[in-house]
Amino acid sequence: MLDIKEVFNAATVLKDVARLTPVIPAPKLSDRAEVYIKAENLQLTGSFKLRGAYYKISQLSDEEKARGVIACSAGNHAQGVALGATHSRIRSLICLPAGAPISKVEATKGYGADVCLVPGVYDDAYARALELQKEHGYSFVHPFDDPKVIAGQGTIGLEILEQLPEVQAIVVPIGGGGLISGLAFAVKTLRPDVKVYGVQSSGAPSMAASLKEGKLCHLNDVSTIADGICVKEPGINTFDMCNRYVDQVVTVSDDEIAAAILALIEQQKLVAEGAGAVAVAAVMFGKLPVDGLKTVCLVSGGNIDVNTLSRVITRGLAKSGRNHTFIIDLADKPGQLSGVCEVVGNGGGNIISVTHERINTSTAINGCTIRLEVETRDRNHIEALSEALAERGFKVVG
Amino acid sequence: MLDIKEVFNAATVLKDVARLTPVIPAPKLSDRAEVYIKAENLQLTGSFKLRGAYYKISQLSDEEKARGVIACSAGNHAQGVALGATHSRIRSLICLPAGAPISKVEATKGYGADVCLVPGVYDDAYARALELQKEHGYSFVHPFDDPKVIAGQGTIGLEILEQLPEVQAIVVPIGGGGLISGLAFAVKTLRPDVKVYGVQSSGAPSMAASLKEGKLCHLNDVSTIADGICVKEPGINTFDMCNRYVDQVVTVSDDEIAAAILALIEQQKLVAEGAGAVAVAAVMFGKLPVDGLKTVCLVSGGNIDVNTLSRVITRGLAKSGRNHTFIIDLADKPGQLSGVCEVVGNGGGNIISVTHERINTSTAINGCTIRLEVETRDRNHIEALSEALAERGFKVVG
Repeated sequence: MLDIKEVFNAATVLKDVARLTPVIPAPKLSDRAEVYIKAENLQLTGSFKLRGAYYKISQLSDEEKARGVIACSAGNHAQGVALGATHSRIRSLICLPAGAPISKVEATKGYGADVCLVPGVYDDAYARALELQKEHGYSFVHPFDDPKVIAGQGTIGLEILEQLPEVQAIVVPIGGGGLISGLAFAVKTLRPDVKVYGVQSSGAPSMAASLKEGKLCHLNDVSTIADGICVKEPGINTFDMCNRYVDQVVTVSDDEIAAAILALIEQQKLVAEGAGAVAVAAVMFGKLPVDGLKTVCLVSGGNIDVNTLSRVITRGLAKSGRNHTFIIDLADKPGQLSGVCEVVGNGGGNIISVTHERINTSTAINGCTIRLEVETRDRNHIEALSEALAERGFKVVG
Repeated sequence: MLDIKEVFNAATVLKDVARLTPVIPAPKLSDRAEVYIKAENLQLTGSFKLRGAYYKISQLSDEEKARGVIACSAGNHAQGVALGATHSRIRSLICLPAGAPISKVEATKGYGADVCLVPGVYDDAYARALELQKEHGYSFVHPFDDPKVIAGQGTIGLEILEQLPEVQAIVVPIGGGGLISGLAFAVKTLRPDVKVYGVQSSGAPSMAASLKEGKLCHLNDVSTIADGICVKEPGINTFDMCNRYVDQVVTVSDDEIAAAILALIEQQKLVAEGAGAVAVAAVMFGKLPVDGLKTVCLVSGGNIDVNTLSRVITRGLAKSGRNHTFIIDLADKPGQLSGVCEVVGNGGGNIISVTHERINTSTAINGCTIRLEVETRDRNHIEALSEALAERGFKVVG
């Protein structure tokens, strides 16, 4: 069982390496709770994972350090272990699935690790890491189910209590459960009055299911944009600690996560990855009993793939009426398109793309359908443009 | 002339309202300088403007306060004045050009201001604000050329010296010049050894041109994605102060600004607006003599229009090879497209859109051209996919 002294010790060890990330007021994220962000996306390596990995490595014996460490991860844990080992001047070997984004592979190498690309998926990389560990006697740094790793993540709890002593609730993402186990243990030990809530993606609710069933559940099919918490089975230790110290675990959908990512960008100027945004999503969408409470949402990481970010933004723009594709049936004769463009331009719409369809069976034989992608101000603006087009006699069908 | 006591006074006044924004290490933004970010994009209202506006308002007489304040702005100054006035429990009226983004209008109202939408552009709104001021006796809060406003912005200089005493250079965006005037005055008064550099957009280099000419220059044509610093003419006071206290002013292009916005997102998990990213752009692209120096880049604001952000990201993705449109000439017969898709899919490319062109005069009469938009990993990946397509006999023309 963890001792709070271990968490204090981790805080001391981490002082020279980890950043003390800010706690930032976020009044616009909820009308009902008084929301703050603990911004671990601003942590070195872009996520909290450095804390647990570095502390674990620091507690190895000299002999173990001399042999080096090994880990398996396609994401933030890889970078945390790599930087943690490099800071401790020991060797690290990270097994990654061969299809991992080149940016993550490069970042891991950049922090000083040797990288072993394993054909297949995460499970194959994991199996290879265990083989290599046995072969060479490396120390294995587990991403979540290790008491030292858990103690390292728990230092975030200490920081929140110091940065915002009047905190009443803390909301934390859950993947394997290492982060929330350490944080909840530290917070409940020192301030049992503070509520600690966990959030999972509804596409990978392994801890939520396990707590409900009262035993470890293994999920075969998991899928979510929050890849950092896409975990099939919680750890034995983390399951036990969540059972003891966490008040409630809820889930959020991918759409809710995307909305939270966009809100963090627009309102807080912070970039969060999917896993990093689930706590905010849970509070934004009223999943937790935090009305009126000073509530800290932990934004655990910011390492979002830029292609994914681009999609989240595009979708968010469409949802909030700032981008709209008008579908218009036209007589296929000269001058029609210029008329449409004139109406849209005069109405303040900014045309991004135009596509003609002439072989659509639903249009008249001498007609065509155009799809006009337009930057708009909001839903009212779209409505106004539609009406202006109709007034000029254009047939807006979508 | 400004007195340093005025800046200290402003710091005291601002303590209860403005956030002490963090100074964050940013080692990946430059190989040559040791870069830190002063993150004023995390300031309340999303930019530094609150500081000057609030301090100015706090120094009005009771009689002036009773009459209320007026300002003209399409952007950050509006929100700064609105929140500053509301905090001081006085009335504010903000004139905005009628075409201003709805999000900025709503944000300004949300901070408690009355909003007057003026038909036309910024200059029209400015003229109307002056009329209203005369009519009703409001106090006018200038966005930059006011000693109290300048003193308020100068508090950022005090904070940087306290947060990073070993700082050697500070790089600051310039629009009208209020921010850099206050900051440079404070820093040069207390620490004349610290270099202060200014950065403008090459699309609106009014201060750079004025300093070069030795007199105030008015630019008629200004255009840049950094709308927050798109200013035609510097202030009289700010021109004089830049002349005295600023070591050098350089310019950056819109492409460089876009690259800096993307780097801040990817490396620092921070959202900057165009104006907010120019200091980072100047250091990233080696425009300043800061090699080996501990350099603070001021990120002045994060209120970027999400449509603009989406474009910056899309363009950045294309530039770095993470999105590519393959143009392929095909025989127009069944099965061709499925062959192309198979090659791309097996090669790990993710197809986003497909467009057929059949009436392109450059293709064979029984052929067609397809444009295949694909998410890719990097330039090498694009090259590999092109080669794989060619090997299967497809004619990749772009």
